[in-house]
Amino acid sequence: MSFKTLEWKKGRLYLLDQTKLPLKETYVKCSTYQEVAKAIKGMIVRGAPAIGVAAAFGMVLGARQSKARGPAAFLRDISRAGQTLSATRPTGVNLLWAVNRMKRVAEETIGEGIPAVERELQEEAIRIFQEDLRVNREIGRQGQILIGDGCSVLTHCNAGALATAGYGTALGVIRAACEAGKRIHVFIDETRPFLQGSRLTSWELMKDRIACTLIADNMAGALMAQGKIHLAIVGADRIVINGDVANKIGTYSVALLCHAHRIPFYVAAPTSTIDLSIRTGADIPIEQRSAQEITTLYGRPIAPQGVKALNPAFDVTPHRYISAIITEKGIIQKPFQAGLKKICQSAGRFSKEEKR
Amino acid sequence: MSFKTLEWKKGRLYLLDQTKLPLKETYVKCSTYQEVAKAIKGMIVRGAPAIGVAAAFGMVLGARQSKARGPAAFLRDISRAGQTLSATRPTGVNLLWAVNRMKRVAEETIGEGIPAVERELQEEAIRIFQEDLRVNREIGRQGQILIGDGCSVLTHCNAGALATAGYGTALGVIRAACEAGKRIHVFIDETRPFLQGSRLTSWELMKDRIACTLIADNMAGALMAQGKIHLAIVGADRIVINGDVANKIGTYSVALLCHAHRIPFYVAAPTSTIDLSIRTGADIPIEQRSAQEITTLYGRPIAPQGVKALNPAFDVTPHRYISAIITEKGIIQKPFQAGLKKICQSAGRFSKEEKR
Repeated sequence: MSFKTLEWKKGRLYLLDQTKLPLKETYVKCSTYQEVAKAIKGMIVRGAPAIGVAAAFGMVLGARQSKARGPAAFLRDISRAGQTLSATRPTGVNLLWAVNRMKRVAEETIGEGIPAVERELQEEAIRIFQEDLRVNREIGRQGQILIGDGCSVLTHCNAGALATAGYGTALGVIRAACEAGKRIHVFIDETRPFLQGSRLTSWELMKDRIACTLIADNMAGALMAQGKIHLAIVGADRIVINGDVANKIGTYSVALLCHAHRIPFYVAAPTSTIDLSIRTGADIPIEQRSAQEITTLYGRPIAPQGVKALNPAFDVTPHRYISAIITEKGIIQKPFQAGLKKICQSAGRFSKEEKR
Repeated sequence: MSFKTLEWKKGRLYLLDQTKLPLKETYVKCSTYQEVAKAIKGMIVRGAPAIGVAAAFGMVLGARQSKARGPAAFLRDISRAGQTLSATRPTGVNLLWAVNRMKRVAEETIGEGIPAVERELQEEAIRIFQEDLRVNREIGRQGQILIGDGCSVLTHCNAGALATAGYGTALGVIRAACEAGKRIHVFIDETRPFLQGSRLTSWELMKDRIACTLIADNMAGALMAQGKIHLAIVGADRIVINGDVANKIGTYSVALLCHAHRIPFYVAAPTSTIDLSIRTGADIPIEQRSAQEITTLYGRPIAPQGVKALNPAFDVTPHRYISAIITEKGIIQKPFQAGLKKICQSAGRFSKEEKR
């Protein structure tokens, strides 16, 4: 990988500015948790796992910003940083997962004094970062078996190195298939309105010299009808108990089109994306973003002034349209509920963690 | 209607420049058939019926440009203009229909001398224009019965006044429903890559104060799952014998999503869109446009340089996903084949006309 999505250097978090890609490769420096929160909200860093990692470092910064002398006040400051970070984007669960994990570390080590907590928090954030890298490689290794040699794979949005600490989830599976010597062609949905497909996924795949073709979101169905797409693979922002998946808006349509054409539809995500506190997709909060993302592009209007526009950032794909869920702990098949619970247990995630 | 899509004035064709909407309302003047051909190719005028009307006036200009003295040479010049105009865009059949109709008029009146042919051609083009207006109003009148009071209607691309001589086909049905006092809300697919939905349909509907909300193409499925869309209605570029319909790329996905959600999917088009020379949609030529329309917007890159992109301008919706076809001669229900033939006969279209 010739770029770093996030980098922790000398106590500062550097984020590759994804709003500027592919035109400019610049980094945004975050010195406070508020800056990290702003970067998440503004989609400078995006992708559920990458947001989780960024938030973890945001918590480190939050701890360092605290002027509290006593342990209770210090924990309150950390909690406040966690609240700010958690409130940035409501749909992806990895953000909450990472913030809670950091808070727990603070609570568990506070007896050792504030400097020890700060040290532990930094180590934990680095661990979350490194785990994510490892987990993605493992998702790739596990999932690549599902992609045959010569396959054309459709992907939506960006579930790549740019959406994670590196390597990627859905793109990680594609990378692993390519590394295994398979010849893969990737069709990339441009993914309106934020254009993660055209701006980010094609940029990533071209850097890795993986063969790819960009299409408008509305072209995938016609390509499926022509037999040009053999399977689809996407990431996830939240996977709930029954296997319903929240992911980038448009994912539901891709899944439904796959179903109608009898094409496998796979979801690739780390176990940290699984939320065992929610039963069905209907209860996942869906972020509504500004209408401006639909009506303007790079600040230029592409619709009449004053037009109403909807901009849900995510949709929910019901489990019945999902062929399998690929995690670092293995491929989960239907019925998903049992498999998801089992895998969370083996990942060492217990009910306590799910409480928020 | 507070604008004119096309206007014939003092022997010149004026086209509302649809590449500049909604930011600028400017007209392009065409004095030669080559200029008309260029305007069609460059999508200054677009929409199958409007292209047909523009091509008819292009034929008038072609006849006037001819320097031929004898009838045979004159007809050859007209034929050449027809060839150039026909070659601009391969999918919509109204273009060929209009060019052939104009050629027939020339052939039938050539005995009366060249000035008479020129006069007849101009009259025929004006007739095609006025017929299209009348036909659209009749499509609206016939079709509006299918839209209930309080309905939310999804439309894709622009099948409105801007795609016709005026009033529109799909939007004509919506207009007629509104004129009948029904409260209608229109969801508009932005329709990548050319953004006919955000740039043109929303502009048209806002001018007419018809309630509408713009969405990205990939959002329609999620809205259907939430019960927010009650029916979909689109135009057509070509309808063939078995009822398969070529229309703007993305139409197929809309139809399939409607089918999966048990939502009616209607096609509204004049009988001139019916092509009885082709049996199934598989034989409709699909225009492939430049990758640049996907990778740039207003000349600004939105994807990495050198990325491959596909850009089919149309797709084919199989008849099984179409609930009914609305024409000026009535609503055609399944099985479409018998209904399409019958309606073409009653529209005075005989097999001779279909030969090309």
